[in-house]
Amino acid sequence: MVSRRIGRAGPILLFALFAGAAHAQSPVSAGPPDPKLIEDLVAANRILADHGLLDGWGHVSVRHNKDPNRYLMARGMSADMVTAGDIIEFDLDSRPVDTHGLPMSALFTERYIHGEIYKMRPDVMAVVHTHAPSLIPFGDTKVPLRPMYHRSAFIAFGIPVFDTRDRSGMTDMLIRNPKLGHDLAESLGDHPAVLMRGHGASVVGPSLPRVVGRTIFLALNATLQSDAMRMGAPITDMDLEEAKLIEAREGHGLARTWEGWKHKVMSEKSEPAGASSGTGAPH
Amino acid sequence: MVSRRIGRAGPILLFALFAGAAHAQSPVSAGPPDPKLIEDLVAANRILADHGLLDGWGHVSVRHNKDPNRYLMARGMSADMVTAGDIIEFDLDSRPVDTHGLPMSALFTERYIHGEIYKMRPDVMAVVHTHAPSLIPFGDTKVPLRPMYHRSAFIAFGIPVFDTRDRSGMTDMLIRNPKLGHDLAESLGDHPAVLMRGHGASVVGPSLPRVVGRTIFLALNATLQSDAMRMGAPITDMDLEEAKLIEAREGHGLARTWEGWKHKVMSEKSEPAGASSGTGAPH
Amino acid sequence: MVSRRIGRAGPILLFALFAGAAHAQSPVSAGPPDPKLIEDLVAANRILADHGLLDGWGHVSVRHNKDPNRYLMARGMSADMVTAGDIIEFDLDSRPVDTHGLPMSALFTERYIHGEIYKMRPDVMAVVHTHAPSLIPFGDTKVPLRPMYHRSAFIAFGIPVFDTRDRSGMTDMLIRNPKLGHDLAESLGDHPAVLMRGHGASVVGPSLPRVVGRTIFLALNATLQSDAMRMGAPITDMDLEEAKLIEAREGHGLARTWEGWKHKVMSEKSEPAGASSGTGAPH
Amino acid sequence: MVSRRIGRAGPILLFALFAGAAHAQSPVSAGPPDPKLIEDLVAANRILADHGLLDGWGHVSVRHNKDPNRYLMARGMSADMVTAGDIIEFDLDSRPVDTHGLPMSALFTERYIHGEIYKMRPDVMAVVHTHAPSLIPFGDTKVPLRPMYHRSAFIAFGIPVFDTRDRSGMTDMLIRNPKLGHDLAESLGDHPAVLMRGHGASVVGPSLPRVVGRTIFLALNATLQSDAMRMGAPITDMDLEEAKLIEAREGHGLARTWEGWKHKVMSEKSEPAGASSGTGAPH
Repeated sequence: MVSRRIGRAGPILLFALFAGAAHAQSPVSAGPPDPKLIEDLVAANRILADHGLLDGWGHVSVRHNKDPNRYLMARGMSADMVTAGDIIEFDLDSRPVDTHGLPMSALFTERYIHGEIYKMRPDVMAVVHTHAPSLIPFGDTKVPLRPMYHRSAFIAFGIPVFDTRDRSGMTDMLIRNPKLGHDLAESLGDHPAVLMRGHGASVVGPSLPRVVGRTIFLALNATLQSDAMRMGAPITDMDLEEAKLIEAREGHGLARTWEGWKHKVMSEKSEPAGASSGTGAPH
Repeated sequence: MVSRRIGRAGPILLFALFAGAAHAQSPVSAGPPDPKLIEDLVAANRILADHGLLDGWGHVSVRHNKDPNRYLMARGMSADMVTAGDIIEFDLDSRPVDTHGLPMSALFTERYIHGEIYKMRPDVMAVVHTHAPSLIPFGDTKVPLRPMYHRSAFIAFGIPVFDTRDRSGMTDMLIRNPKLGHDLAESLGDHPAVLMRGHGASVVGPSLPRVVGRTIFLALNATLQSDAMRMGAPITDMDLEEAKLIEAREGHGLARTWEGWKHKVMSEKSEPAGASSGTGAPH
Repeated sequence: MVSRRIGRAGPILLFALFAGAAHAQSPVSAGPPDPKLIEDLVAANRILADHGLLDGWGHVSVRHNKDPNRYLMARGMSADMVTAGDIIEFDLDSRPVDTHGLPMSALFTERYIHGEIYKMRPDVMAVVHTHAPSLIPFGDTKVPLRPMYHRSAFIAFGIPVFDTRDRSGMTDMLIRNPKLGHDLAESLGDHPAVLMRGHGASVVGPSLPRVVGRTIFLALNATLQSDAMRMGAPITDMDLEEAKLIEAREGHGLARTWEGWKHKVMSEKSEPAGASSGTGAPH
Repeated sequence: MVSRRIGRAGPILLFALFAGAAHAQSPVSAGPPDPKLIEDLVAANRILADHGLLDGWGHVSVRHNKDPNRYLMARGMSADMVTAGDIIEFDLDSRPVDTHGLPMSALFTERYIHGEIYKMRPDVMAVVHTHAPSLIPFGDTKVPLRPMYHRSAFIAFGIPVFDTRDRSGMTDMLIRNPKLGHDLAESLGDHPAVLMRGHGASVVGPSLPRVVGRTIFLALNATLQSDAMRMGAPITDMDLEEAKLIEAREGHGLARTWEGWKHKVMSEKSEPAGASSGTGAPH
């Protein structure tokens, strides 16, 4: 939006804007991302929607393949309807490079979750924010999540619980500014995910397939742990070393499952995704 | 029905009818409602059916946009099959303006839930009556519902439990007359919903998307609370102030989810909805 | 089968067969049933399959509209694939009128459940035998089912538990002969349904829509009761008088839901059902 | 792969390879399997995927109808996408007869589960390895599975729990070599299935329909047992003799259900399966 006004105002006004309101300027694009990355981001939205883990709230992003200081995420919309043309590029302050004429209110309010985590965790290449129902009871009771099986072995590395009240008191619980995003990222630390009390969770990973898989199995693990707890017998723990050996694997099996998940959601939809070469105009 | 007979009988009989049986006369229509409202009412029926929250029992209504003393609701039928042509206009005594030739038995017996709530709650613009399975255990045990996360923050304002036996003794439990509807509306008070012992719940809101969202998240919250309760650890409460801040938001995110819900149920059905400009003849 | 051989053998052999092996003769048909009844029986099969309550095991029957000593049921097959041409007519000893060339092994072994109940309960017009998963824990623990809400009010009339071991000792648990069917019918008594330990349930009703509705809500009630029991608070009972008033209703609302259920399963299938006028040749 | 290189290298090199690296040679094919067996194997993959019991992890195999020392299984891929052209032939050391140009990494790492079980159990004709969610809590708590109803009567014969740590210490928990496969097969013994701590289960049977049915009902039984346990009343056990009588039946009813399961998954998919006459080239 701002960049469009700048474009129309010309170079003289541009200087004034730069001097007086540095934060109002739009960040520069890193250039068109890899079409395969966009295709996978569209698929990630639909796969998580298909699993009941994203709807019109919650979102998934991926770091730009050409610039670690940019990330890609859909405009504010229902995840099951996302196409390549809905992807927006952001800098790590979560400012859009170009909203293609959409008002700022058409973007996800909580995009700071993504930007602040990418800033603090250079190893993270993809982020999911979900309201997965099965995770809510664990965030509310603070009963620690434990890895129930090898698909969710990463839970052995610890899943902290973040509470907006601890540092920000009474809020509407949304991560609606950089400070809250920063606090959340600090709570996440070097863990693979963080639960959010009365809200949901944020999950990170080294790739889109990994973060999607982690989100699905984190949510499933919560159900299985809850089921196991009610059986009244002690749960045999996975060894931390087992978890490390599992996580060190190449993700070969995950690639097969990712292919299956993607096949299902892409063939079910009439609208093609991934045909566009980048962050085209949202529609 | 009655209005048709009046029409055929002519002005002289009309006077006699007015004098002798004022309640038998049909109320006057407030005129064609906004087609967008009808489209959303059709969508609300199908979305709630798609979520397993309405079938051939249970119903959703909306206040007429031209007259606060009229409301709109489908004829008695399965919610997933409702089209624009099935919508009937009622006054707040729940008398139909025009049944288009259908017998009174073709209307929902429990329509008094809607009329009596609209009378007592001018702020309410839409009402859902549901038999959502997950709510039944809470109505039967009277375990208070608590807000498990921000999607169901409105629960912090209190969800009372209504029991037909308290004032009306042995009944078939249906809200089949104005008195029972009035009792239910009194039990609801200024809360966002009321559970009904051994029956279900009635939910209210300032718009169709809000009341549909509240119904979906009320039912989901019941499942999550039940899951959390069995984990044996105390549940961290949401602060009332947090709930107020969440409810004060504009519902921007809900609009996105509403779009996704609507897209799903309207594209799945072959019969177009919302094409009609109002309360056409039921078929 | 036998009747076909008789037909070819002629009257002399016929007499010999009658004298020496009365049970081997085929019963006489009551004539073509009402096509609407066949259509509803096909729908009942598919509705119960759609609800996960019937598969290749379990079955639904209806008493013949022309003769209370005959009933109609599909040949042994998966319920979701049943068409009008698969319906077979049986007498109350559960002997087929005409198997249309199918071997006896192509019929349901447990058809005696139906015949023996129809003998003992003249009020019963339709019977379902199901392995509904949610009912299994109640049959195994013998925890009494209680009516959780008005949809399942009939549970207030009592749901006994039948155990094959009580009179027949070690068996494969199937109701594979008239004696076991008779024992089950005695256990059912004048109740609306009977649980079968380690097996499932048999449900009866005055019509196909009623028995289908009872089966669906019996299974749902089990889940809701189990959920309520784990909440640790006492469950408020429905009064027996309330249950009687609910059951005395005409089932007007059920007709609407039945229409919705039927619409869904009949429009989803490519194979037309109910077009045939009766018990055509199975295919 | 190796066989292709041999093919190109010619007879002289062939001898050298045989002498120096006997294990590197490809086993000889037993010839084209029965097309019906391939069709059922494709169906088994899709049925288990449709029940949520297989995805890109987990697999199902069947012994070759022409040679008990060969078995058939899909290449490494998502079960819902398997077609006849994806089936590979293996010897009992789990070496592929012909990978059709695929690298060894394109095969399931855990294929040793199948080969080692076929070696030790001549009665077993089909094997499933699944991560069925409902089984995980039982493997983790070691609460013994008990047969809840006749569909899962085989559980009465005992379901042991295998733990990779018992003999192999810290691993990534995969059965990625013959030794681990052998250990698992020993733990299975003569039982119908074995749970795997923190991993899933392996199920065996005398045919594809039987092993698929056992997998589905083993997983369902876990849910039902967990539900029954929380009801706080003792569970009535099935007698071992009842279980033996049930298991001794011909599986006539299972054939009907198998037909229904197969009809559903084969008609839903656009890609034909079973048209190929054997182990064609994977694509």
